[in-house]
Amino acid sequence: MPLTPLRGIFAPVTTPFAGDDIDLSAFRRNARHYATTPLAGLVVLGSNGEAPSLDDDESDALIAAAREEYPTDKWLIAGTGRESVRMTVAACRRAAALGVDAVMVRTPGFFKTRITPESLLQYYTAVADASPAPVILYNITMFTGVNLLPETAAALSRHPNVIGIKDSGGDISVISELVAQCRPGFPVLAGATTMLYASLCVGGHGATVGPGAVAPEICAGVQEAFDRGDHPEARRLQALLVPIAKLVGPKWSVAGLKVAVDAYGLTGGPPRLPLLPVPAEGVRAIHEQVAVLNRSVARSP
Amino acid sequence: MPLTPLRGIFAPVTTPFAGDDIDLSAFRRNARHYATTPLAGLVVLGSNGEAPSLDDDESDALIAAAREEYPTDKWLIAGTGRESVRMTVAACRRAAALGVDAVMVRTPGFFKTRITPESLLQYYTAVADASPAPVILYNITMFTGVNLLPETAAALSRHPNVIGIKDSGGDISVISELVAQCRPGFPVLAGATTMLYASLCVGGHGATVGPGAVAPEICAGVQEAFDRGDHPEARRLQALLVPIAKLVGPKWSVAGLKVAVDAYGLTGGPPRLPLLPVPAEGVRAIHEQVAVLNRSVARSP
Amino acid sequence: MPLTPLRGIFAPVTTPFAGDDIDLSAFRRNARHYATTPLAGLVVLGSNGEAPSLDDDESDALIAAAREEYPTDKWLIAGTGRESVRMTVAACRRAAALGVDAVMVRTPGFFKTRITPESLLQYYTAVADASPAPVILYNITMFTGVNLLPETAAALSRHPNVIGIKDSGGDISVISELVAQCRPGFPVLAGATTMLYASLCVGGHGATVGPGAVAPEICAGVQEAFDRGDHPEARRLQALLVPIAKLVGPKWSVAGLKVAVDAYGLTGGPPRLPLLPVPAEGVRAIHEQVAVLNRSVARSP
Amino acid sequence: MPLTPLRGIFAPVTTPFAGDDIDLSAFRRNARHYATTPLAGLVVLGSNGEAPSLDDDESDALIAAAREEYPTDKWLIAGTGRESVRMTVAACRRAAALGVDAVMVRTPGFFKTRITPESLLQYYTAVADASPAPVILYNITMFTGVNLLPETAAALSRHPNVIGIKDSGGDISVISELVAQCRPGFPVLAGATTMLYASLCVGGHGATVGPGAVAPEICAGVQEAFDRGDHPEARRLQALLVPIAKLVGPKWSVAGLKVAVDAYGLTGGPPRLPLLPVPAEGVRAIHEQVAVLNRSVARSP
Repeated sequence: MPLTPLRGIFAPVTTPFAGDDIDLSAFRRNARHYATTPLAGLVVLGSNGEAPSLDDDESDALIAAAREEYPTDKWLIAGTGRESVRMTVAACRRAAALGVDAVMVRTPGFFKTRITPESLLQYYTAVADASPAPVILYNITMFTGVNLLPETAAALSRHPNVIGIKDSGGDISVISELVAQCRPGFPVLAGATTMLYASLCVGGHGATVGPGAVAPEICAGVQEAFDRGDHPEARRLQALLVPIAKLVGPKWSVAGLKVAVDAYGLTGGPPRLPLLPVPAEGVRAIHEQVAVLNRSVARSP
Repeated sequence: MPLTPLRGIFAPVTTPFAGDDIDLSAFRRNARHYATTPLAGLVVLGSNGEAPSLDDDESDALIAAAREEYPTDKWLIAGTGRESVRMTVAACRRAAALGVDAVMVRTPGFFKTRITPESLLQYYTAVADASPAPVILYNITMFTGVNLLPETAAALSRHPNVIGIKDSGGDISVISELVAQCRPGFPVLAGATTMLYASLCVGGHGATVGPGAVAPEICAGVQEAFDRGDHPEARRLQALLVPIAKLVGPKWSVAGLKVAVDAYGLTGGPPRLPLLPVPAEGVRAIHEQVAVLNRSVARSP
Repeated sequence: MPLTPLRGIFAPVTTPFAGDDIDLSAFRRNARHYATTPLAGLVVLGSNGEAPSLDDDESDALIAAAREEYPTDKWLIAGTGRESVRMTVAACRRAAALGVDAVMVRTPGFFKTRITPESLLQYYTAVADASPAPVILYNITMFTGVNLLPETAAALSRHPNVIGIKDSGGDISVISELVAQCRPGFPVLAGATTMLYASLCVGGHGATVGPGAVAPEICAGVQEAFDRGDHPEARRLQALLVPIAKLVGPKWSVAGLKVAVDAYGLTGGPPRLPLLPVPAEGVRAIHEQVAVLNRSVARSP
Repeated sequence: MPLTPLRGIFAPVTTPFAGDDIDLSAFRRNARHYATTPLAGLVVLGSNGEAPSLDDDESDALIAAAREEYPTDKWLIAGTGRESVRMTVAACRRAAALGVDAVMVRTPGFFKTRITPESLLQYYTAVADASPAPVILYNITMFTGVNLLPETAAALSRHPNVIGIKDSGGDISVISELVAQCRPGFPVLAGATTMLYASLCVGGHGATVGPGAVAPEICAGVQEAFDRGDHPEARRLQALLVPIAKLVGPKWSVAGLKVAVDAYGLTGGPPRLPLLPVPAEGVRAIHEQVAVLNRSVARSP
């Protein structure tokens, strides 16, 4: 079956560890489960996959395992952003060789005071020129301290090897502007759960959000309801996602999503340092919310 | 000759490139020159060395070359900070095997919203436990978005394998607090040129600053004047450093320091993307300031 | 005629000056014009009215003039926020005596490091207890450095003398949360033009935005289209507003809105220091955009 | 006796309240006490005086009372900054008529996104032109969100009616630059207790700091020790000030200073909303620190 268009809900996959090493068999089980959900695709080695904490061998092993477990008619996307063109292109090449459908390249961020629109334009052009896999731009200012402006993204959307953008900011007008300024039909994915529904209203194409990994039916349900014009139902499902979005977003971030993945019945496990595990009361709150979501799914027709 | 105490002016060494690759022979020439200056040591693979833009093979080659060129009675320090304990320890081990005197480990920074004092304490303890080379803590909030608090640094200063700290913030009271709270005599190095003299006044032990790479005599002169109680001369030399500090700091950053290294007579060269080269008017301003500094040195007794 | 519900587009009225003094007759002409537009009401002494730059006598004169010129079946709202309960209540009392329908009270902001949710709760409760006029909460973090959280606003929405909120942040999920958490039906007005349409999608009740003062038909048209379920037309009109929103928002702010008011055919004029007049190229850009908006209005059926 | 030069330690005076009103008799007692200390002067209606929370009548009453109680050979300075030239000049005129020696004018801050170096230059020039009392510039970015750059301050230092600057930032290099760039001898006062000693090292002329109101002998002692070249003693006294500086600065701010004033034996009392009183454990910590300071003073020769 051919790959679907770049549209819908994509889940970031967390990386389970067994002691100091990655737990590949748990990772495979997780990936197999996601294949049975209404997700449009998976992102491995995203922020929620703790990509910055993994070495190249670990990264390659995870991509290879995901490719074996996940069906080829859905999107398998790998995060390959590094801090220089040389290192990013090397990661893109390895990911492409392992069979990903696209690479998601976050902005470099270390030299944040000197990363300008022009430097991002040159950077992404060089990466897209050299990457064998199609490139999805990835703007996540919260973690990088760098902002990829809609104007720059619009210019890059005309590059033949750039196929979409994920913007993780919380500003709905940025989604509007990306839709308005990028080439017509250019997929714009939101990264903030709390504005999933609003981003669809202003013309977005879907989202890559943590709750996709623990409530894929509800996330996908927001978009299905929107697509059939049922705004009240889309808003109702959207509202269900707000508490978990806070817990695995601003409140506990990656470590929280891993707890939610445990609660969902897959293997999340603890994060790597410098991330700390979620303390007991946080674990309790997350389990409660996942239970609420599970009941919502069970109840729906 | 034995290694001197960790005190004085340390210069970050920039990384020259020849096309897409590092230019090792230029790097060696630079290192040989620095050996003839009053610097107390060199830092390779620091922020000004564009460490985040270099892959592991390049990093190792630079350390090895520096070790061959630089005398063993002065400090050769390598930046080895990565985003996880696993990756940082691996870098520390490789650097130690190549003969560095110490490693400088910047705080991890990607997951900035969830990096707490406790996570930094655990992170650095794990790194210091495992690193074969002594560890210098490195706090550079401007680039990482993370702040290593004096309280945490003070606790870490009691670890037997932690031998100093570089703090690149501009807040003199942080230097005061580090001096007051860390174990007695723990070396505290400033990273902001503009407060070199003031940091000595409040008990600091020196500095690792970009202008050390293009005005080592003046930087060292500030500390020599201070040490002999000649405050007016220390202030006079400090004032000479302010214009270049701005040009290679907030104004043009790493790319600016590389231009200054060219102007100084060594090989700086262009930076790697995402850093852009300094435009012509910036180059002119930097060359003028380096000329001013050269004349100051020539004139002094 | 009775007052309409608190819903729709409200325009902030700018304050014209004649030399060092306010120009009351120009202000009256402006107010008379706005009475003929589809605006639901006016806000005098808002941020765009340069309220912080006006003394109490000037403030009172403007309110009195607006009350005389503007019909009583539309909302006349006056900004009365000061930095303490004593001063704010005094301003509320004077505005009420002059006949306003409501007061809009921005968060205090000077002591931003010590203004907590609890202090805002106590502050607004004290103001609402004492104000003879109904209170609209006003959160404008960009100018105050203080953020009124949805939780706090929700608690205040149960106060019998608090009748609505204007939130000028750009985060659509804040509008969603205000709608979800405040008492049912509590009017939530957006303050960011660029998310006018999106705020309606998530349940908002309208907006108080600068472009309302120079493109009232288009702003009101967004809401009318939304109300009749014509999302494509709402999005089309929303898109028309983006360029002017940037010019009178982030780009030139209050001084820019005053230029736009001139271009619209009313009296804007220069701002008071510390605001500077818009330079010539900015004036040109603003005039062009207002002309575009005028043609759009002229063309519509 | 003639007024001393603008040099030394100046204390901000807090404003005691009796219920909803200012407590003038307590304020007078406080002022009389300060006259017996080594302070070089008092600042009434500063940030620590809760100036933004006081109306004009209250402000005038406080100035008049201070003038009656405080000797004319020491500096009586009143904060008169408002948000526009018109309002600030009016406040300067009233303060001058009541006999202050100088006015301290903080930068306007409401329209922070549009307050530029040029607008501050025009603003302060207009104020200094019109103020009958000499003007001290006041930069307090923490509260205003606006930064008066050294370059702008340097230009203003040439205005005949501008006689000094207080900079409350924590960056020692700003103090250095102010000293270097302003007209020779222009008084530069620090506003951050933690860098009092360092600011003297780099050429500053003193400080206006909260702890001056509860530990005037120790604050003045730092400067006296520095003046006679006794750096170790200056550093020792400086170190004594750090804990109280944190408590009445970042930790509890104005409300904390008022508790410290109570502990010192004068009348502090609770702040006005939106400031909340310090909770019990904070009160305890502040009383303990003031006791430590009192013992230090009692012990010294």
